[in-house]
Amino acid sequence: MIIVLKPNSGQDVVDHVVERIKELGFTPHLSQGVARTIIGVIGDEEKLRAEPLQAIEGVESVVPIMKAYKLASRDFRAADTVVEVKGVRVGGGHLAMIAGPCAIEGEPVFNEIADAARDAGANILRGGAFKPRTSPYSFQGMGEDGLKILKATGDRLGMPVVTEVMDPRQTDLVVRYSDMIQIGARNMQNFDLLKEVGRTRTPVLLKRGLAATVKDVLMSAEYVLSQGNTQLILCERGVRSFEDSTRNMLDLSSVPNVKGLSHLPIIVDPSHATGRPDLIPSMARAAVAAGADGVHVEIHTCPEKALSDGPQALLPAAYQRLMDEIRALAEVMGKTIDACEGVHA
Amino acid sequence: MIIVLKPNSGQDVVDHVVERIKELGFTPHLSQGVARTIIGVIGDEEKLRAEPLQAIEGVESVVPIMKAYKLASRDFRAADTVVEVKGVRVGGGHLAMIAGPCAIEGEPVFNEIADAARDAGANILRGGAFKPRTSPYSFQGMGEDGLKILKATGDRLGMPVVTEVMDPRQTDLVVRYSDMIQIGARNMQNFDLLKEVGRTRTPVLLKRGLAATVKDVLMSAEYVLSQGNTQLILCERGVRSFEDSTRNMLDLSSVPNVKGLSHLPIIVDPSHATGRPDLIPSMARAAVAAGADGVHVEIHTCPEKALSDGPQALLPAAYQRLMDEIRALAEVMGKTIDACEGVHA
Amino acid sequence: MIIVLKPNSGQDVVDHVVERIKELGFTPHLSQGVARTIIGVIGDEEKLRAEPLQAIEGVESVVPIMKAYKLASRDFRAADTVVEVKGVRVGGGHLAMIAGPCAIEGEPVFNEIADAARDAGANILRGGAFKPRTSPYSFQGMGEDGLKILKATGDRLGMPVVTEVMDPRQTDLVVRYSDMIQIGARNMQNFDLLKEVGRTRTPVLLKRGLAATVKDVLMSAEYVLSQGNTQLILCERGVRSFEDSTRNMLDLSSVPNVKGLSHLPIIVDPSHATGRPDLIPSMARAAVAAGADGVHVEIHTCPEKALSDGPQALLPAAYQRLMDEIRALAEVMGKTIDACEGVHA
Amino acid sequence: MIIVLKPNSGQDVVDHVVERIKELGFTPHLSQGVARTIIGVIGDEEKLRAEPLQAIEGVESVVPIMKAYKLASRDFRAADTVVEVKGVRVGGGHLAMIAGPCAIEGEPVFNEIADAARDAGANILRGGAFKPRTSPYSFQGMGEDGLKILKATGDRLGMPVVTEVMDPRQTDLVVRYSDMIQIGARNMQNFDLLKEVGRTRTPVLLKRGLAATVKDVLMSAEYVLSQGNTQLILCERGVRSFEDSTRNMLDLSSVPNVKGLSHLPIIVDPSHATGRPDLIPSMARAAVAAGADGVHVEIHTCPEKALSDGPQALLPAAYQRLMDEIRALAEVMGKTIDACEGVHA
Repeated sequence: MIIVLKPNSGQDVVDHVVERIKELGFTPHLSQGVARTIIGVIGDEEKLRAEPLQAIEGVESVVPIMKAYKLASRDFRAADTVVEVKGVRVGGGHLAMIAGPCAIEGEPVFNEIADAARDAGANILRGGAFKPRTSPYSFQGMGEDGLKILKATGDRLGMPVVTEVMDPRQTDLVVRYSDMIQIGARNMQNFDLLKEVGRTRTPVLLKRGLAATVKDVLMSAEYVLSQGNTQLILCERGVRSFEDSTRNMLDLSSVPNVKGLSHLPIIVDPSHATGRPDLIPSMARAAVAAGADGVHVEIHTCPEKALSDGPQALLPAAYQRLMDEIRALAEVMGKTIDACEGVHA
Repeated sequence: MIIVLKPNSGQDVVDHVVERIKELGFTPHLSQGVARTIIGVIGDEEKLRAEPLQAIEGVESVVPIMKAYKLASRDFRAADTVVEVKGVRVGGGHLAMIAGPCAIEGEPVFNEIADAARDAGANILRGGAFKPRTSPYSFQGMGEDGLKILKATGDRLGMPVVTEVMDPRQTDLVVRYSDMIQIGARNMQNFDLLKEVGRTRTPVLLKRGLAATVKDVLMSAEYVLSQGNTQLILCERGVRSFEDSTRNMLDLSSVPNVKGLSHLPIIVDPSHATGRPDLIPSMARAAVAAGADGVHVEIHTCPEKALSDGPQALLPAAYQRLMDEIRALAEVMGKTIDACEGVHA
Repeated sequence: MIIVLKPNSGQDVVDHVVERIKELGFTPHLSQGVARTIIGVIGDEEKLRAEPLQAIEGVESVVPIMKAYKLASRDFRAADTVVEVKGVRVGGGHLAMIAGPCAIEGEPVFNEIADAARDAGANILRGGAFKPRTSPYSFQGMGEDGLKILKATGDRLGMPVVTEVMDPRQTDLVVRYSDMIQIGARNMQNFDLLKEVGRTRTPVLLKRGLAATVKDVLMSAEYVLSQGNTQLILCERGVRSFEDSTRNMLDLSSVPNVKGLSHLPIIVDPSHATGRPDLIPSMARAAVAAGADGVHVEIHTCPEKALSDGPQALLPAAYQRLMDEIRALAEVMGKTIDACEGVHA
Repeated sequence: MIIVLKPNSGQDVVDHVVERIKELGFTPHLSQGVARTIIGVIGDEEKLRAEPLQAIEGVESVVPIMKAYKLASRDFRAADTVVEVKGVRVGGGHLAMIAGPCAIEGEPVFNEIADAARDAGANILRGGAFKPRTSPYSFQGMGEDGLKILKATGDRLGMPVVTEVMDPRQTDLVVRYSDMIQIGARNMQNFDLLKEVGRTRTPVLLKRGLAATVKDVLMSAEYVLSQGNTQLILCERGVRSFEDSTRNMLDLSSVPNVKGLSHLPIIVDPSHATGRPDLIPSMARAAVAAGADGVHVEIHTCPEKALSDGPQALLPAAYQRLMDEIRALAEVMGKTIDACEGVHA
């Protein structure tokens, strides 16, 4: 940690800061110039961070040097984490191909869409049972009935399934029916929910919040990891920006950025990022070329009648074409796509 | 709702859209030009909104006309809502002056700060017992012990108290100890939590999310109102932006903007918005001049030893000066500041 | 400047960096911990900044300590700069009240609007002759004919006038007709234009760019000042954000922020910031309460027929009411509004 | 264009708007519901756009239907535009591989870097002679001396060259020495400069502004095209965002977005977008997979001594590896990379 004093600070300020640092058990290193003094403090930054040194009169700024996350960091674990979702590996060269409708709307439609996902080569099936909707008047999901359909369909097709949990009180229920639990963008900093899924041993898919920096994402990952759940996959899904022709702005640079800072797998969701079926395939391809560990795409057999986010769903045929392109790119990138159990059947 | 078809759409597309609109029970109004067709649909937009008409092949865009929120809207209630927090009125010309430390750290310090807040003229006392911290390793609040200190101090001084709830499972507990419950920025779209506080009859202080538009804030307000709790105050506290010299960017224009669209009171929190004590007084004054229904300021008697957000706290003397300035501006603006009960004692 | 080395950097890296620093004529101060080394360098940071030390293998980050601007800084000049625009003082407690139409559209309309501005108490008259329009097909301004109308009207009313310059080749022309020259938001980093107006001795009104940080604004100010023109006023006019209900997001905290960092006056333009006549008065009041040195408002006698930005213009009667409110606030804030010469006549 | 009236507007408002529309020579189509009236107007939207109909009392909003750009639009020209830069094709399946240092610093260094670029397979050489620097005290470029070095080196290697123009007064000079002229991000809305390069017949590389939407980019393209210069290439180079670990946020979705809206080629500059050599290769690969028409990368043989933007330059060896990866991806994508003339020699 580096403490920068205001220009022309008196010796009393320097002494006061040095005193505080020593009180806290650290050794200050002073660099004094004509007008400026900076004080370096090397040691357990966690302990220092808890102290509001910036509030000391005479301190201009406090510059942290160490990362605030530990368990999520590459320094903590150099090798790529590989998460296994019911036999499907994600990370370390293995790509997750997650597909399915935004919401589970009923058994026949979900079965139809799930078949299409499996046929195109998806290896994880998604479907929302609890839906975070901006409006209280929109369809809020089928709840436990939806979870039952999800599990039955996953079992039938031999595909692992993923679904969102929104409320810590639903965690046990969702874990019972699902092979991976998703934390949505709006809940990325719902810390009680993060702790709750951290206490399970079910893989977690953590989506980036709409205003979250890469560091924020890793801090939220730290909440899950610090509870003992190491089966964690991150998901870039775009952030809010001034650009109004896409739903969000996909920050694809977060993929190599996260990979440099952390051992955790990171996938990309071009569906929520762009909100536009005409842009999803390009962004899915770009994700794989950028080094992402998978792609999450919403598909629907009849988007114009979908109960949630219909306009952004790909039709099965378009998803099939996209999967062909992704397979070609995966080969160039030296990545593999695990087939789910159902495909071997 | 207006449906714009793609240029040179065939008659079959027009027919298909017209068909769908009639199926849904509406009357389409066509405007056909040489290259373009637009279709106006007047009626209950709520019902239309649920249909993903944009997903129909040939539809370029769907432009909503009506607002997606109802109970929060000025159209629903023309007069300003006045929320009463244990006798202190907020809205309709009455200003909330909320002050206190970020977190309750112990009885002696909290008492000292609370006395300073009351002496300066604050009429609502704040203090966090459950703290949403970016890092799992930071101080997470005193929990129920903190709530007890909060309530005891509020009772002693005759001041209403406000504190944050982060988890739907804590709602009953927080309601027992607090006169107003705060939903923090990170939970603005934690819809289960919104429903939960909507079921209580305790006043709610809903803070704007870091990436929330004014419309998003009003949609979250609608979640609370639709559960029957009409005692709702909004709070502008800045949004994420590229400007890196302040913690967030205070969007003060949201104050008159919300007041035009909604009957709900809206206050401003310059502490979290700027994160800088040197900017807080100016922004507090500006808030009052912009027409805000109150100001929320974090204060501390020893910021350099605070356990949370110390660097952004005002010292009691600075808060006292600010309150003097605010009183002068309130007079010019024709606003009143209710004294809390404790002051009459 | 502080140079942070990557964790566990070898001694060879430390030596290489120390060597480079000494080569450049500075003395390095090392702080070495178990895993980390940081190197403080005190001295003329300008010289250091020119060196890409961050590109050295083994350097994690370079943290500047000194501000990159000098002449614009409060450290350079502690007292507020007061700019005189043909007798009207701006800064140091004196408020500029700039009003007029977006574009000069012809003599009769401009005269009518100018009379209204003067009657309401504006002390500087604005009017665009060269217009930066997003579309090449929009009205581009009257050019020199417009400048002539501007000057004639300013002379008739005894009001100083301000107008925008967009092209360095127009600078001499604009200076001939105008008492202050405006650099628009889109040209805030048009460095050749900044140098050109810096070479004149006419007061300059420099608007914040749509994606400019406060530091960027001050760096652009430095371009003007470094050419010898010290008659410079900054203008906050909102930045781009995700909020789509206002044209831009007014960052009012930039006012006290700039005042802390710089001696230059800063005014606020709520017209371009909000783009909405219903929000302009609130934001103009807030600007004065925040400590701004003036307010820039577009007015028009017939907004629905204006050739540029009509929908955001205030009607004369609304401007008159606003000026009454501003005068009341200015008194509370201890500020004065110089009358222009024409008012004494 | 669709005109939405405020709820419960009287018949007089409807009549007034209808009147105005007819005055302008259009036929209004009314859709009247219980509380709402919307008016469709089909026809030459350009003419309508010039009228500030939104300023009419009683009008809630005006929704444009047609795009504001014409010549840049896919509707105007369905086939991809292919720009030829001294024999190197860009667009329509042909990729530009632009490489070189940020600034030309002297003949020996530039020659060395240019050789490396050519050897790796770049087909266009870049180098800045006029540099837009945030600080007036930073190196501003070598000016005409730099242009001479650029041209001599391009001639020697048989490579087309591109360099930035910042001031309309330099256009003739730059055109003399360069095969393509770049408009930098900060000048994307420097409309006089756009007109000036539009008057030449030299290919133009137009970079996206830091706060520009995709629509804004296409409107600026329209400025160039409307002056008769159709040799135009767009460049995505990231926009400003709240993410502070990268220099800008690369909006890769703008690539397929632009390709849907326009016939113009669009390339990507991951160097300025990320500012980080560790992220550039991933983003360059992603650009090609997203369908970009080329990649612009800054390289340097000794980044730690570069006079401008050293820390973001790739070393020649890293660029060589990247080019190998890009060639593999280009093949999968069915794209070709023209060799420049010098390679045939």
